[in-house]
Amino acid sequence: MGNGRVLISCQEFNPRRWHQLLSRSRTVVLEPDGARDPSVEYAVVWKHRPGALSKLPNLKIIFSVGAGVDHIFADPDLPDVPIVRVVADNLTQYMTEYVVWRVLDHHRQGMAYRAQQARRTWHEPPQPPADAIHVGIMGFGTLGRAAAKALLALGFKVNGWSRSPRSAEGVNTFHGADGLDAFLGATDILVSLLPLTPATRGIIDYALLGKLNRDNALGGAFLINAGRGRLQKSADIVRALDDGLIKEASLDVFETEPLPKTSPLWAHPKVFVTPHAAATSDPVHLVPPMLAQMDAFERGETLRNLVDREAGY
Amino acid sequence: MGNGRVLISCQEFNPRRWHQLLSRSRTVVLEPDGARDPSVEYAVVWKHRPGALSKLPNLKIIFSVGAGVDHIFADPDLPDVPIVRVVADNLTQYMTEYVVWRVLDHHRQGMAYRAQQARRTWHEPPQPPADAIHVGIMGFGTLGRAAAKALLALGFKVNGWSRSPRSAEGVNTFHGADGLDAFLGATDILVSLLPLTPATRGIIDYALLGKLNRDNALGGAFLINAGRGRLQKSADIVRALDDGLIKEASLDVFETEPLPKTSPLWAHPKVFVTPHAAATSDPVHLVPPMLAQMDAFERGETLRNLVDREAGY
Repeated sequence: MGNGRVLISCQEFNPRRWHQLLSRSRTVVLEPDGARDPSVEYAVVWKHRPGALSKLPNLKIIFSVGAGVDHIFADPDLPDVPIVRVVADNLTQYMTEYVVWRVLDHHRQGMAYRAQQARRTWHEPPQPPADAIHVGIMGFGTLGRAAAKALLALGFKVNGWSRSPRSAEGVNTFHGADGLDAFLGATDILVSLLPLTPATRGIIDYALLGKLNRDNALGGAFLINAGRGRLQKSADIVRALDDGLIKEASLDVFETEPLPKTSPLWAHPKVFVTPHAAATSDPVHLVPPMLAQMDAFERGETLRNLVDREAGY
Repeated sequence: MGNGRVLISCQEFNPRRWHQLLSRSRTVVLEPDGARDPSVEYAVVWKHRPGALSKLPNLKIIFSVGAGVDHIFADPDLPDVPIVRVVADNLTQYMTEYVVWRVLDHHRQGMAYRAQQARRTWHEPPQPPADAIHVGIMGFGTLGRAAAKALLALGFKVNGWSRSPRSAEGVNTFHGADGLDAFLGATDILVSLLPLTPATRGIIDYALLGKLNRDNALGGAFLINAGRGRLQKSADIVRALDDGLIKEASLDVFETEPLPKTSPLWAHPKVFVTPHAAATSDPVHLVPPMLAQMDAFERGETLRNLVDREAGY
């Protein structure tokens, strides 16, 4: 059992299971007392209250529950300690499942077949094989590369776009603002796995969707957003669907979550909605590697999955 | 250009594109005159009229359009010449796409999410990862093994069942009537890719569906039939769904096709219907290897993808 105490600080999130699992190896404290506890060396956070970490003199590491860390940088009083992104193999597996599922449902025309079934219509539309379709993945880190590998194994052509140059076997990679238009123009099905930063906020807008390749064997372009809700402008997505810039969309994330009942996305016939469920952050899988990182840190080992403060992810 | 003429004999099927593509290399004839043409050495068939091939004295090979050949054995006057199953790499790719798509849609609870969306409900049900789920593939030939490989790559556990013993890396294989119950009991999502033979007709019935493992992380068992329609008893599937033996079904094939408007499958909320479209038999991909087999045969080479008359597939 390590000595450093763990503070859990979160909003819009029930910490019960995290508390239970972390408590097996560490003393866990909560707000408000825990927020002033000098024995706290680790903070496990999800959308913590700004300033909530500013009165911990011995804080060593902040752990972010979930792959996205934009919620952490929303705090102007964020202490200057390392931030570790909690990523289990399991999270990558969930995200890969989600991406392949949504790509296949668009590629194999699931929406059209469900509409036909409702009308009792027996009709087989032309179906291109996977290797006639280019899936473009925006955000080409651990999650993007794993999804690319699974899509390549099914025969899809895969493009990848990232801020800085990256390469992956069998993937046609693009990078930076200069590479974006070429990436979009070569992409039939766009998959967003981008982190949310000042540079990516609202990037999925009407203009971007208009640059996708819709002159393809599926007769249109498609959007899948499993990154962050504020990457997209929902009103632009609805307009792009209605104007035919894109044919269908699968959205797992939204500007406001839960998605308000009044959102036109719920009832749009060409939109598939899931409740930020693409890659669940199951504590059963995430707590053990988090505890292992605390132990390793206390042995003087190097931290893994560190967040780059300057890049914001 | 080879000398042997090609007869196309089919029902429920428009041979126009096949005729066009075969004609680039061979003289193609049709019924009724072609059915008595002594220059015909090859027959390309799909549900041909019984007896339609019996007056071709120089017939050398029968080619079956599509992987299933039960339609050929329905002819009591079938000439005793080799039967070649036309299988393109492409057909395997299409079937793998279909199987992975349907497995993921059941695994990731697509039906539940679509129902929630219609009610504007934001709710994330528990989601097991792929490696908590066992997919069982009945019919473990070329198509079954390719689907197994793709499912393994996504993390699913895979069981395979076939008439005679077969093995595949990473797959738990079962065989024969003696192995069937153990296979079903270890399977959460059943995928049927069986050929239709006297031994498999009607095999997917109420008793079989009741043997699947429904005490699993998805809270029920699932059926995917992409083999042949007469493998299943539709009334039993509906009863198994309504009694909770299985939770959902994806059906691409039916006892009668097109599926009659009166079938209860169309409107069943737990059934997904596609119109025998899992693996399209696109002549653009199938004609070139068929022509290559004719040329190879005339050079004295061995035929590939031969049907075993005794086994019936």
